[in-house]
Amino acid sequence: MAKKRIQHSKKKIGQIPGSIIYTGEKSNQKLFIEAFDYNKDKCIVKELLNVEECFNFEEGSITWININGLNHVNAIEKIGEHYELHPLVLEDIVNISQRPKIDEYDDYMFVVLKMLYYDANEKIISEQVSFILGKDYVLSFQESEGDVFDEVRERIKQAKGRVRSMEADYLLYILIDAIVDHYFSVIEVLGDKIEDFETAIFSGDVADDVSQNIQNLKREILRVRRAIFPLRDIINRIEKNENPLIQQKTITYYRDVYDHLIQVSENIDIYREMIWSLMDMYMTSISNKMNEVMKVLTIMASIFIPLTFIAGIYGMNFEYIPELNYKYSYFVLWGVMIAIFISMIIYFKRKKWL
Amino acid sequence: MAKKRIQHSKKKIGQIPGSIIYTGEKSNQKLFIEAFDYNKDKCIVKELLNVEECFNFEEGSITWININGLNHVNAIEKIGEHYELHPLVLEDIVNISQRPKIDEYDDYMFVVLKMLYYDANEKIISEQVSFILGKDYVLSFQESEGDVFDEVRERIKQAKGRVRSMEADYLLYILIDAIVDHYFSVIEVLGDKIEDFETAIFSGDVADDVSQNIQNLKREILRVRRAIFPLRDIINRIEKNENPLIQQKTITYYRDVYDHLIQVSENIDIYREMIWSLMDMYMTSISNKMNEVMKVLTIMASIFIPLTFIAGIYGMNFEYIPELNYKYSYFVLWGVMIAIFISMIIYFKRKKWL
Amino acid sequence: MAKKRIQHSKKKIGQIPGSIIYTGEKSNQKLFIEAFDYNKDKCIVKELLNVEECFNFEEGSITWININGLNHVNAIEKIGEHYELHPLVLEDIVNISQRPKIDEYDDYMFVVLKMLYYDANEKIISEQVSFILGKDYVLSFQESEGDVFDEVRERIKQAKGRVRSMEADYLLYILIDAIVDHYFSVIEVLGDKIEDFETAIFSGDVADDVSQNIQNLKREILRVRRAIFPLRDIINRIEKNENPLIQQKTITYYRDVYDHLIQVSENIDIYREMIWSLMDMYMTSISNKMNEVMKVLTIMASIFIPLTFIAGIYGMNFEYIPELNYKYSYFVLWGVMIAIFISMIIYFKRKKWL
Amino acid sequence: MAKKRIQHSKKKIGQIPGSIIYTGEKSNQKLFIEAFDYNKDKCIVKELLNVEECFNFEEGSITWININGLNHVNAIEKIGEHYELHPLVLEDIVNISQRPKIDEYDDYMFVVLKMLYYDANEKIISEQVSFILGKDYVLSFQESEGDVFDEVRERIKQAKGRVRSMEADYLLYILIDAIVDHYFSVIEVLGDKIEDFETAIFSGDVADDVSQNIQNLKREILRVRRAIFPLRDIINRIEKNENPLIQQKTITYYRDVYDHLIQVSENIDIYREMIWSLMDMYMTSISNKMNEVMKVLTIMASIFIPLTFIAGIYGMNFEYIPELNYKYSYFVLWGVMIAIFISMIIYFKRKKWL
Amino acid sequence: MAKKRIQHSKKKIGQIPGSIIYTGEKSNQKLFIEAFDYNKDKCIVKELLNVEECFNFEEGSITWININGLNHVNAIEKIGEHYELHPLVLEDIVNISQRPKIDEYDDYMFVVLKMLYYDANEKIISEQVSFILGKDYVLSFQESEGDVFDEVRERIKQAKGRVRSMEADYLLYILIDAIVDHYFSVIEVLGDKIEDFETAIFSGDVADDVSQNIQNLKREILRVRRAIFPLRDIINRIEKNENPLIQQKTITYYRDVYDHLIQVSENIDIYREMIWSLMDMYMTSISNKMNEVMKVLTIMASIFIPLTFIAGIYGMNFEYIPELNYKYSYFVLWGVMIAIFISMIIYFKRKKWL
Repeated sequence: MAKKRIQHSKKKIGQIPGSIIYTGEKSNQKLFIEAFDYNKDKCIVKELLNVEECFNFEEGSITWININGLNHVNAIEKIGEHYELHPLVLEDIVNISQRPKIDEYDDYMFVVLKMLYYDANEKIISEQVSFILGKDYVLSFQESEGDVFDEVRERIKQAKGRVRSMEADYLLYILIDAIVDHYFSVIEVLGDKIEDFETAIFSGDVADDVSQNIQNLKREILRVRRAIFPLRDIINRIEKNENPLIQQKTITYYRDVYDHLIQVSENIDIYREMIWSLMDMYMTSISNKMNEVMKVLTIMASIFIPLTFIAGIYGMNFEYIPELNYKYSYFVLWGVMIAIFISMIIYFKRKKWL
Repeated sequence: MAKKRIQHSKKKIGQIPGSIIYTGEKSNQKLFIEAFDYNKDKCIVKELLNVEECFNFEEGSITWININGLNHVNAIEKIGEHYELHPLVLEDIVNISQRPKIDEYDDYMFVVLKMLYYDANEKIISEQVSFILGKDYVLSFQESEGDVFDEVRERIKQAKGRVRSMEADYLLYILIDAIVDHYFSVIEVLGDKIEDFETAIFSGDVADDVSQNIQNLKREILRVRRAIFPLRDIINRIEKNENPLIQQKTITYYRDVYDHLIQVSENIDIYREMIWSLMDMYMTSISNKMNEVMKVLTIMASIFIPLTFIAGIYGMNFEYIPELNYKYSYFVLWGVMIAIFISMIIYFKRKKWL
Repeated sequence: MAKKRIQHSKKKIGQIPGSIIYTGEKSNQKLFIEAFDYNKDKCIVKELLNVEECFNFEEGSITWININGLNHVNAIEKIGEHYELHPLVLEDIVNISQRPKIDEYDDYMFVVLKMLYYDANEKIISEQVSFILGKDYVLSFQESEGDVFDEVRERIKQAKGRVRSMEADYLLYILIDAIVDHYFSVIEVLGDKIEDFETAIFSGDVADDVSQNIQNLKREILRVRRAIFPLRDIINRIEKNENPLIQQKTITYYRDVYDHLIQVSENIDIYREMIWSLMDMYMTSISNKMNEVMKVLTIMASIFIPLTFIAGIYGMNFEYIPELNYKYSYFVLWGVMIAIFISMIIYFKRKKWL
Repeated sequence: MAKKRIQHSKKKIGQIPGSIIYTGEKSNQKLFIEAFDYNKDKCIVKELLNVEECFNFEEGSITWININGLNHVNAIEKIGEHYELHPLVLEDIVNISQRPKIDEYDDYMFVVLKMLYYDANEKIISEQVSFILGKDYVLSFQESEGDVFDEVRERIKQAKGRVRSMEADYLLYILIDAIVDHYFSVIEVLGDKIEDFETAIFSGDVADDVSQNIQNLKREILRVRRAIFPLRDIINRIEKNENPLIQQKTITYYRDVYDHLIQVSENIDIYREMIWSLMDMYMTSISNKMNEVMKVLTIMASIFIPLTFIAGIYGMNFEYIPELNYKYSYFVLWGVMIAIFISMIIYFKRKKWL
Repeated sequence: MAKKRIQHSKKKIGQIPGSIIYTGEKSNQKLFIEAFDYNKDKCIVKELLNVEECFNFEEGSITWININGLNHVNAIEKIGEHYELHPLVLEDIVNISQRPKIDEYDDYMFVVLKMLYYDANEKIISEQVSFILGKDYVLSFQESEGDVFDEVRERIKQAKGRVRSMEADYLLYILIDAIVDHYFSVIEVLGDKIEDFETAIFSGDVADDVSQNIQNLKREILRVRRAIFPLRDIINRIEKNENPLIQQKTITYYRDVYDHLIQVSENIDIYREMIWSLMDMYMTSISNKMNEVMKVLTIMASIFIPLTFIAGIYGMNFEYIPELNYKYSYFVLWGVMIAIFISMIIYFKRKKWL
């Protein structure tokens, strides 16, 4: 796991800066490009067959081109040329190990962020999504086609909400908002997992691998933190900076996303703290169990060792042991031993060991 | 519990930003609107039957409209239209999972905070209260009708204190102050709980679920922190910013609320630290107990095992064991065993195990 | 204890802001007012019989009025009226749960701080002292008459040091300095306590309540921190801000107080760290003891259990056990058992358990 | 190890500031100087035989002189004279215990950083590399000749990428970039090591020196942190400051290096956190093992001690023990003992100790 | 120890601010004053017999007066008068519990710092050194005559390095540099101590007082931190502020001292972290030992308790125990017991307890 996080870097060591090399694992992905061209009055949606089609859109409308399949480096390079993107931007788009960041260039703004979701094996997947925001277009780049933008597609097609009457900066906002919304469900699964552990530890019903699982959970949280925390600064910067690409009236919406991110971040920090407590709790439960084991041992040993000693005494073969000859000795001895037994029990009850 | 904190978000994922959807659980709440319209000379109080009545107040007086029942989304929307509130403000009012925050708009100020109280089951309830401060009005929105503002109502009606001769910003202040006052009682209950745990742990009289309870307490504190800490920044911002809605002479009062919040925050941090210590203490007490158990076992075993061995020796059936035939062997042996017993006891006393 | 710290707040919940209510426990305190009126040439000291006398001082001299007995709310209100103090200032003076703070008003400066001392039961007492610094007067408010200002009284009366030739801001400085000086002795007692614990833990001579005592010590340190740390910021603000009430030449003196506070704060932080280590140490000492107990048990059991087994063998009643009939079997057996005993001892010596 | 890190300082204590003394251990290193002199059109590469040759380069081209062998203090001093470097710069170049730093002088910029690699014994080596960036030259100083710049050499010679058409500031960038690229491989080895430990601890297959190894790993991470973290600030400063030596168009590239460093730093912090968890995990695994040992002991003792007691009873030599004379006593007793045995087993199964 | 750190303060409580009272313990120190008066061309060195001689130096040369023996308060007062030093400066010079600090006055700069060295008992000694930097003089004040400035003396006398051709600010620099150089050797001893502990703990060869020693080490580090960390800020302030007493060309040298201090601070922080780890390690080693003890006990008990039980069975005196009468019973039993023994050994081997 640790290995995977930095695996990609290997491929790139020693490369010329600005080399456009896909560093992910989905190298068989088909290229899928869809384009939305809309304004208040019209909305054209088409799936593009080749990259060149991207460039035939009219003035006076907002264009969203969604490119899926980062392994198709050539296509991305062509787009980069057409939109005059800096080589480092193209490099960052296909290098999927980017940290979320924002880079402002003269004519466009480049935003990288991470989409988070749980896969079928309950493992967190963090997929890189890059956006280019220009004057009247948004380009989005994903590793593979996902359903996170479905809602956005619907809104544009059916003119739901404000999207059709707003500019490209609002489009970027609803795209980011769709991703941030997904964080909430990831966070929720995390919360459920922590709760399950808590219940398990409190009920004493812990599997052997509980500490391994806690460690894994810690790592998941680190991962999510790493995807989400830098995004906070990015949105804050969009909101604060006076980039002409972002209009005054859209800023309120970015502030709203920012509020959501703060909420998510707080939840993550709470989970973090809770998981550290879990480990403590687990340690305590181990100690408690050992305590219980010790008590059973102590009680058994403390009761029977003295009794065995007494029995041993009268098993000796001395010629002259007066007690041996009295008729009721045996029964008296039983009485004594039962008395010892009972007083031991009382003693342990008082100590609350029973 | 963890689940609940983010439950609402589910409902909202994929919604159009600005959708006004109530995310709480009190969906059967009756709508209750009360209005206060006052100035130095007069004070009109009425319960409003429908939303439209809210809008018929004269100039030259301060109006406070208190809306209870966030499930009545339509009513809130109407109020929003009348007072020209931004759609995101309305969304935030009914989305009860807001973090305390302040948003300043051109004509009004929007403040969200959390009211805290313990319910009948000693569980902390955190209820969202939103305020809109306009030039000569304050709107307040609550999930359900509570008694936290009773004192404020009295003061307005009976012209106690300065409220009738001050502006709307002072009204907002006493409303916030009423909520902050409640924090003190929550904090007090928390303090009592921690003290009870401490007493329990020190007296060794710990229930089995003590670590679960400590964990719950930690979470309560996290919750309270989360409600109170952002409020500090909000009040600080009100005090520092030069928003024309807040007059110079009222700022001293906000500074006073700020001081109270710092006091509460400090107490919370102290409790936090105390509760971490509690866990340590509990661990220590477990270790101490195990130590005690071990000592009993060691003492019993150390005393009787050698004695049993001696008894075993003279239980052997060798044909020639000279000691067996001496008349007083048995009594001498008892002497030896008692001597061993006593020297053991002395040894353990010296080691302070007894 | 935890309860006490916030007890007062209860009394005040729901009160009108600016209500002047004494929140302390010393409600039977006699009102004691003393006044110093001095300049380079003269010094008048008198005990005042009623509040009105406070107001009859001439121009051209510095006046220090020291009011003891915060339960006499009326007297304080009268003083407040005369000196035109803000209602919130009066409220803060008698509300003894203030956090140390400074509030600057147009004509005067309001400073709240905490006097710390150990009472007869070695418990830390934190008493609130408030100062009003005006153009040519200083008012000081205390719960009860103390001796912390004795040295200051002497200096004024006998014209020791610079005090008689300086302004009111210097008077405020020496009053604060007197309180800060006392912090050093509190810190010293704390240091002694920690050292005593250390010695106790290292010598293994720990009472049963050591973890409770460590917890109490932690709380004392939290308390002292809470009184002293905000004061640092206050003095820093006096030194940095250009309040006309503080003259340039006095600032050097405030910087000196600031240096002292930094020294005290550093000591507190060191103590804090030391006390956390103490707890670790205590845990280690418990573990070490358990280790020792275990060793004794293990040695006793490991030596005698095999020997007892051997004795058991020859206690069996089989008809044909050849060894039983040899004449020297018994002595040979003793030899074997002693050999086992000695080799066990050597084994444990090698393991350094003996 | 700890000793080595500060060993050099000894040599220097009491030296006159500005004394140029090599503090490393590679004192037999041969001096090796290579020079690249290139522009768009040409590229001259030569190995220089003596220092003086360094100074014969024409205008209008970029010169990179790479000096290997810091023990040749005289040569470095001559270079320093020629390029008019400050004596403290020369001192820092040969004092290999520098912290990464940047010093800006009037005509040149001095950058110190650390190259990290694992040697044959899997030990991290941190070697100091210094750069002087002038208007049209870059000087680089290394302890010994390495292969980290091989890729850069190739690019210059074969005019790959942009390097031949850019200025000296771009050359400095690709040199630094080559070093930062190496950090990724170091980080990767660290990640692998941590993972190996995790696997070992989880599988319970821990060598005796695991805690020593964890401690060593911690130290390695501290070391790497120490080399990398200050570099972040350095690159940030290059990017932010408006030093005329760095052109506007190159800044984007430095920002890219900065992004890489942030990525590395984040990984380091994650590893740090993971390694602290590892220690916890190891403690838990020890406790778990002790628990298991205790259980075996408790089960054996609890089952056989009572049985042994019963056997002891009927080994007594009382004259009158009625049970001894019944014919089937022996078999009945076996039945009783087997019953006790079975019920014990059931009891322990229920407790989940078996 | 803790006591000592604040002992002095006792002496001073209640004193008039500006009272010049020596708070150290070296009250029998002889007063020793040496003066250096030099410029490029000449250098006069003399030991002064009384304070008045200090004041007879010509213009046009740099004067360094080194005063040893802070107990000679009168002499210091006379110097203070001559150089017109503020009373608080004189108070700080003789109050040896100052925190390192810098105070800038109109005509001079006052710097307090701590010299650190290990005394004969391997105990850290922290001695206060104060400097006054004037336009063409430096005054230095020490508790007792030391050898830390020997190198500086040599350099001035023999005109080594730049000192004779530079101003007073450079002299102050080399004096401070001499002290900072000493920090490196203190740090080195600390590093060695930590390493020794590590080796001891890893080899399992820990003395009984190891946790006490670790605690002492922690305190030493706290002490060193406390002396060195504030100095960083002081040097930084000298470097950043534009005090006319510090010339532009000297600032590079102060930056060099600053770099050294950062290096020392980093080492201290690393040691701090390492020592916290040491404690963890020690705890782990205790747990490991207990584990080992437990294993021996468990193995011995588990093997011999069942065997003893079997022997007990055939020691019973039942009239009818069929096995007793078979001739080879005894040998068969031995076979059974050896089989049990061997299978136990195999079991424990498999569990890796042997």
